[in-house]
Amino acid sequence: MSAPYAESAGPKIVALGGGHGLAASLSALRQVTERLTGVVTVADDGGSSGRLRSEFGVLPPGDLRKALAALCGDDEWGRTWAEVLQHRFTSDGDLAGHAVGNLLIVALWERLAERATGPLADSHVAGLDWVASLLGARGRVLPMCSVPLEITAQVEGLDPTDPAGVRTVRGQSEVARTTGRVRSVALEPSDPPACPEAVEAIRGADGVVLGPGSWFTSVLVHLLVPELAKALHETRARRVLTLNLAPQAGETRGFSPERHLEVLAAHAPDLRIDVVVADDAFVADQPALAAAAAQLGAELVVADVAWADGSPRHDPQRLARVYAKVLSG
Amino acid sequence: MSAPYAESAGPKIVALGGGHGLAASLSALRQVTERLTGVVTVADDGGSSGRLRSEFGVLPPGDLRKALAALCGDDEWGRTWAEVLQHRFTSDGDLAGHAVGNLLIVALWERLAERATGPLADSHVAGLDWVASLLGARGRVLPMCSVPLEITAQVEGLDPTDPAGVRTVRGQSEVARTTGRVRSVALEPSDPPACPEAVEAIRGADGVVLGPGSWFTSVLVHLLVPELAKALHETRARRVLTLNLAPQAGETRGFSPERHLEVLAAHAPDLRIDVVVADDAFVADQPALAAAAAQLGAELVVADVAWADGSPRHDPQRLARVYAKVLSG
Repeated sequence: MSAPYAESAGPKIVALGGGHGLAASLSALRQVTERLTGVVTVADDGGSSGRLRSEFGVLPPGDLRKALAALCGDDEWGRTWAEVLQHRFTSDGDLAGHAVGNLLIVALWERLAERATGPLADSHVAGLDWVASLLGARGRVLPMCSVPLEITAQVEGLDPTDPAGVRTVRGQSEVARTTGRVRSVALEPSDPPACPEAVEAIRGADGVVLGPGSWFTSVLVHLLVPELAKALHETRARRVLTLNLAPQAGETRGFSPERHLEVLAAHAPDLRIDVVVADDAFVADQPALAAAAAQLGAELVVADVAWADGSPRHDPQRLARVYAKVLSG
Repeated sequence: MSAPYAESAGPKIVALGGGHGLAASLSALRQVTERLTGVVTVADDGGSSGRLRSEFGVLPPGDLRKALAALCGDDEWGRTWAEVLQHRFTSDGDLAGHAVGNLLIVALWERLAERATGPLADSHVAGLDWVASLLGARGRVLPMCSVPLEITAQVEGLDPTDPAGVRTVRGQSEVARTTGRVRSVALEPSDPPACPEAVEAIRGADGVVLGPGSWFTSVLVHLLVPELAKALHETRARRVLTLNLAPQAGETRGFSPERHLEVLAAHAPDLRIDVVVADDAFVADQPALAAAAAQLGAELVVADVAWADGSPRHDPQRLARVYAKVLSG
C-alpha cells in the first residue's frame, strides 16, 4: 500500500471500466472503502445514450449512470434511487427506451453549461459530482475522457468467403455485437484528452481495479487514452485486473482467460499488473493462466467470485472479500 | 382550530391550487407547519405535461412537479433539487421542453404500475409519495382527481361581430390564454373521482387554503369535483381564500377582487370561507370587498403580501406571516 489511510475511510481505490462489469466492481469495492472513484468509458453510441449524445452533443451518459446506480445507498431510499435511475420509459413515443438516470445526468450538464463561462467539458465533472450528491452516492464517478469517443475495431471472419480477411467495424454498439473475431480496437480521436480528475485519481490511488467488463469496448479502451495509460503505468497504486467469468458473445467469443491477457498486453505493452483475479469456473488451465499473468508481472488469484446461481455475473459480496485481500497487498 | 397539535409539527394544513400560485402558498405554509399537503389540479393539456399525458395516458405532471419543487429543502441540496426538477431541456430533438421533474414523476408512476396488481390510479399517489421521499420534500403532494381532466369554459366576446355571444373553449391551455371573458368553467368528465387521500386530508385538516392562482383553471376547478367540494363544505378546518395580486391576462382580465369572489360563489354556492386574504395594492374599494367576503361568511384580511420589487408575485415570507396569523384563528 503506497499511503497510510484511516481505517474508517479505507484506501483510495479507482475502478476503471464501463457497463455492468464496472457496476459489479464498484458494488464490491464500496464494501472495502469509502474513498472510491469510478472511471467510465464514454464511447457508447447505441440506445438511449446514443440518442442523447446526438441530440445534445454531450458524453454518452449510460455507463456513467450504471456506475452511479451502483454507488447508491443500501437503505430503501438508496435502493429506490438506483432502480429509478435504471428505469426505462416504455411507450410508443419520444421517450421510449430512455433511462431516467441518463436524462438526469444530461439535465445537470445542460444546467451547468447554461451558467458556465468556461468550456463545456468543465461541466461534465461538476455535473456528475452534483448528480452523485443529489443521489447520496457513496463515491465519485468520472468520465475517462472529456470528449465523446468512437471505437473502431479490426474484425476477422466477417466475410464467409474470406475467413482470414479483416474489416473495420465502427461504433461501440456494432463492435459489441460483431459476429466476427475482434483483433484490436482503436479510438477516434486517437489521442483524446483524458479527464484530468481521472488522471489525478489514478496517480493518487492506493489501488486501481481494471475490469471486469466487455473486454475490448469497456476495459482495454481505457488503455488507449494516452494520459490514462501513462497514469496507470506510473501510479504507485496496486494494480488489479479482474477477468470476466466467461467469454462474451460478440467481442470475445471463444477467448480463453489467457487470450484475454494477451490482447490486453498487445494494446498496452508497458502496463504492469500486480494481481489478476479469475473465477475458478472459467480457469481451465491454471498453470497457463498463471504464466500469462506472470508475463504482466502479476500474481494470479483464483477464487469463487460468481453468483451461486451459476449465472455469469460477479457476486459483489464474494468479489469484495477478494478485493479486500488483494488490495491490502 | 379544530384539533390540538404539537407545537413542533404545526397544524395540519391543506393547500389547493395549481401552478405558480399553489407553489407560492406551499412555500409560505411550509414555514407555518410541518404537516402540509398540496392538492393539485390535473387538467393541464399543454407543453411537456400535455405531451406526457398523451404519450403515457397519465395525469399531467407539471403542476404536481411545481408543488414538489416548492416543498424541497432550504439547504443547497434541496435548492438544487428544486432547480433540477424545474429544468427544461433545450434541444432541437425529442426532449426539448420537457421538465426533468415531469419525467421523474412519470417514471415513478410507470415503475409502480409495472409492479401493481391494482388499478393504475393507485400508483399515482404512491408514485408521488415516492418522488417526495426521494427529494426529501417537506410535505405531501396529491392530485385532486384520479383521472386526467379536461376543462371547458364558456367565453364571451370572442367574436368581434357578436360581443355578447358565448362560445365554448376547450382545454386548460386554451382557456388560460383566451382573449375573451370567461363566464364559467366546467370539467369533463363532469363528476370525476376525487383522489381519496385528498378528500381525507381536507376532512382531517386544521386549515385549508385555496388560491392564489389562475382563478378559473387552477382555483375554481377544485370546487367542481363533487367529493372535494363536499369535503371543503363539511370539514371543520379553517378555510382561507387567497386572492391574486392582479387580474390575469386571459382568464380574469379586468376582474376586480370582488368579481373574483362572485365567480367563486357562482361555481360553489354552498361554500363558506372564514378568511379572504387580499394584497393592499389590489384592493381599490375595501368596503365593497369586505361586503363580498361577508357574503361568503368571511372576514377580509388586507395585508402587504407581494414582493417588494413590485412584481405581481406573492412573497412567501410575507404570506407566511399572514397565514400563521389567520390559520391560528
